[in-house]
Amino acid sequence: MMASFRDIKEDILARISAREWAPGDLIPNEVDLATRYGSARSTVNRALRELAEAGLLERRRRAGTRVARRNWRGAFFEIPLVRAEVERAGGRYGYHLLERRAEGAGPEAAARLELPAGAPVLFLRCLHFADGLPHQLETRWINLSEVPAAGAMPFEREGPNEWLVREVPWSSSEHVFLAAMPDAGERGLLGMEAGEPLFVLERRTWSAQATITWARLAHPGARFRMVSRTDPTG
Amino acid sequence: MMASFRDIKEDILARISAREWAPGDLIPNEVDLATRYGSARSTVNRALRELAEAGLLERRRRAGTRVARRNWRGAFFEIPLVRAEVERAGGRYGYHLLERRAEGAGPEAAARLELPAGAPVLFLRCLHFADGLPHQLETRWINLSEVPAAGAMPFEREGPNEWLVREVPWSSSEHVFLAAMPDAGERGLLGMEAGEPLFVLERRTWSAQATITWARLAHPGARFRMVSRTDPTG
Repeated sequence: MMASFRDIKEDILARISAREWAPGDLIPNEVDLATRYGSARSTVNRALRELAEAGLLERRRRAGTRVARRNWRGAFFEIPLVRAEVERAGGRYGYHLLERRAEGAGPEAAARLELPAGAPVLFLRCLHFADGLPHQLETRWINLSEVPAAGAMPFEREGPNEWLVREVPWSSSEHVFLAAMPDAGERGLLGMEAGEPLFVLERRTWSAQATITWARLAHPGARFRMVSRTDPTG
Repeated sequence: MMASFRDIKEDILARISAREWAPGDLIPNEVDLATRYGSARSTVNRALRELAEAGLLERRRRAGTRVARRNWRGAFFEIPLVRAEVERAGGRYGYHLLERRAEGAGPEAAARLELPAGAPVLFLRCLHFADGLPHQLETRWINLSEVPAAGAMPFEREGPNEWLVREVPWSSSEHVFLAAMPDAGERGLLGMEAGEPLFVLERRTWSAQATITWARLAHPGARFRMVSRTDPTG
């Protein structure tokens, strides 16, 4: 199978993350990598160039390519359960289920969960509070073919996120952070000022077989930020 | 030196990241960790509890604490140079210096750079373009005591970020992601619609000795999102 430059980037990133290739190590040359991945040398070159631009590799003419010792240009955000996040900040956590219905996937749910339209899903909308103030509005679909047990859960006292983390193993995930304006309903539910933006975290989670769940976690922008502090040990 | 629960969390996170403690490994018990860190057992307990809540550790009564095999509840965002980011998306990169002045640190610069008021700093404001459209508004202070060479750089053709990455080694960094409304000047410079929010990335970088630089990188919210996809190999 011919690897794409994205496949090659991901494989190299995985080796760096696992410290198979440690900071300062020389990695194989382009010709050897092209053989290893069964790809054109130009494909390998593009992967190496992008990783070098991101600061993960250091390329030197003649001296070869090394894993960068510093300038790991990235940020790791720990994303705790919302209850843990509120309690960690010294707040009192509250939870309220707004909507829960099992249904056939409409166009958005089908796209988010990578399912055919009409596939069985559970739609949930929940509010999470910190000291009685709305902190996060959660909108979620769960793939009931992959997680049938969710169909029997009321989610009236415990949010679906906590239940999923405890009960359903996952193997990969995607996070998207973005800024957006709330609609009137969201503004009201979250108790936001006119003209205040949302900070939105979208998360999709997969098992080895299928998409498990997609969630949109919306926070009042004036009261929320994501912080990451890194001390690279390389 | 007595370690705080934050010190202990950071040390444990560093060991997990470096795979000194790999997924599934049993870590030392609370009593041993309290001895190792010279801290109260309750301090160690708080660090372990927060790491468990974040999904990084699994705690079992009697069976001890292990590094979690899955549910790494976090997201790693690669943060490339803006030029690389634009070119990677197939765009044509452009750069324009708006303001550059050496000055004594005012209240905001002093706070951002952790310097006394009046300390020598370089203030910079730059626009980065993708295919001729404004993509990022960069506002930056550089600590001239720590990076005196920056005082001689015009930054007219190359942005300060690229120069700093190439010339100035750093040892730790802090990233903050947030949503905010632009002021009229920012909206005009970035060519944004009325009512469109900003996605803002703030980054502070330290050498072993001092703060090097603080930057606010503001993007039009309608055209920008941060994406991270993880395949934990644990």
